[in-house]
Amino acid sequence: MPAVILNDVGPRDGLQNQSKVLEPIDRVRLVHALLDSGVTHVEAGAFVSPRAVPAMAGAADVMAGLYDEARGGVTPVLTFLVPNLRGYELAREAGVRSVCMVLYGSERMAEANVQMSRVDAEHATAEILQRAQRDGVRVTTTVAVAFECPWEGPTDPGRIASLASEFLARGADEFCVADTIGAANPRQVQKLMQRLAGENGAARLSCHFHDTRAMGLVNVYAALETGIRKFDAAISGLGGCPFAPGASGNVATEDVVMMLEQMGLSTGIDLDALMRASSLATQLTGTAPGGRARAWLQRADL
Amino acid sequence: MPAVILNDVGPRDGLQNQSKVLEPIDRVRLVHALLDSGVTHVEAGAFVSPRAVPAMAGAADVMAGLYDEARGGVTPVLTFLVPNLRGYELAREAGVRSVCMVLYGSERMAEANVQMSRVDAEHATAEILQRAQRDGVRVTTTVAVAFECPWEGPTDPGRIASLASEFLARGADEFCVADTIGAANPRQVQKLMQRLAGENGAARLSCHFHDTRAMGLVNVYAALETGIRKFDAAISGLGGCPFAPGASGNVATEDVVMMLEQMGLSTGIDLDALMRASSLATQLTGTAPGGRARAWLQRADL
Repeated sequence: MPAVILNDVGPRDGLQNQSKVLEPIDRVRLVHALLDSGVTHVEAGAFVSPRAVPAMAGAADVMAGLYDEARGGVTPVLTFLVPNLRGYELAREAGVRSVCMVLYGSERMAEANVQMSRVDAEHATAEILQRAQRDGVRVTTTVAVAFECPWEGPTDPGRIASLASEFLARGADEFCVADTIGAANPRQVQKLMQRLAGENGAARLSCHFHDTRAMGLVNVYAALETGIRKFDAAISGLGGCPFAPGASGNVATEDVVMMLEQMGLSTGIDLDALMRASSLATQLTGTAPGGRARAWLQRADL
Repeated sequence: MPAVILNDVGPRDGLQNQSKVLEPIDRVRLVHALLDSGVTHVEAGAFVSPRAVPAMAGAADVMAGLYDEARGGVTPVLTFLVPNLRGYELAREAGVRSVCMVLYGSERMAEANVQMSRVDAEHATAEILQRAQRDGVRVTTTVAVAFECPWEGPTDPGRIASLASEFLARGADEFCVADTIGAANPRQVQKLMQRLAGENGAARLSCHFHDTRAMGLVNVYAALETGIRKFDAAISGLGGCPFAPGASGNVATEDVVMMLEQMGLSTGIDLDALMRASSLATQLTGTAPGGRARAWLQRADL
């Protein structure tokens, strides 16, 4: 068993924020390249309106194309985001066995994302969670803007703590704390995750960091120090952030793997194969190579 | 008083590793731009052989050109590296009041850098330190490859602990632990700096990290957690590393300032003015803009 589990959100959170829209077949290629490197958890798509989010159109085709048999004794966890009951039903019809639903740390982010109040979004998520449990579907609930909202400023840590306790009590398999805009600093992360781990145990908690302000890796480390052992990351740092033009997006999977492995924490991921997935990601999207570790990983004498 | 002191080593460690050699007048401009932003400690040059290190030629001219009067009640600490007694004497003749001397974590790095054995380099440094104390000159002793040597591999932490105790006992004003090749991970940093701080107190200890493997900031954070409050950094991440082509060099001063200020730790440095120093650094050297925080710092709505 790896010491730390990484969930690559590049094929969803990453691609959703790229200007180039990829065909389902190319999204499948990217997921397979990740699985080939030893990544066991991938956020592979979203069942959302193709008009609202063209990059995620054809999620059922992605799911149909995915090879998700056990590799090395481990069955990959291929997660799709669902924003509402309709999305959940489509995901189920497509055979999805793991879904991710989003909660909101602020009112305005909920409105901007799903045109619902924060509390209505919580009710909708609770309802789908109940359905998913009956259906035997795995559920991650992710709380967006858990540290700071671009409109409302700092998020009340007590609100995040309440959401974590509530949704873990409701049976969510994972509660993910997301720094959606990359505004968190390691001191905040340390404080919030220590509280959440103290109240709920660390086993079902995870974190999602963006590298917007170059603090992706340091925030991963601060969370590790509190016992968190599961992280979102995106291959090649795909993502970008609409609030910070030119900024990098999600913390790059290759950066996180490199740091963890050098710290002696196994990830089960082969870095050479991961770099091939990274090259594929940049080739498909036409973006500049991301991931700040790349220069070192690709040095001549490696 | 700022909570954390940053020593910008760009004009020495940074420029020494750039392909373009700057005239003393341009190096003076860069130091002044740093002082103008509120940086109080700068490694401004080196009294080394101009044949061996053309980028540092004319160090006396740099010193003569520097404006080092007190600003806001604080007298800048302008440090010059001296590799031997001859360099020390030249620095003194030029009016230098703060010097930096290098110790080595490995035999082969000592040989490669100063063609001396590790122990001979220690003796030479001890001798100059004694002279400097009589002269009222401030001394930093920096131990290179404190975590890993490119030829000898991991450095024995016990060796670094002995050097720290010895040179602090001899009266060094500062003992700087340098990850010269950017190979350290935060777990190693935490362990070594906790030991050194426990044995010597943190007040005269400092750290020097490179961003070669993208771990510059996380290593700063790990050291902060052990009580270290002084760090080297280089404007715009100047530096590079001969062992990792294409890799970034020192951790960028602007990245460190951004992280610290967001953590609520004051540095006394104005980020807007620091970005002007960063732009000057890239303009003078002709390098690509470094510092990973730049994208966020220069975003449209800042």
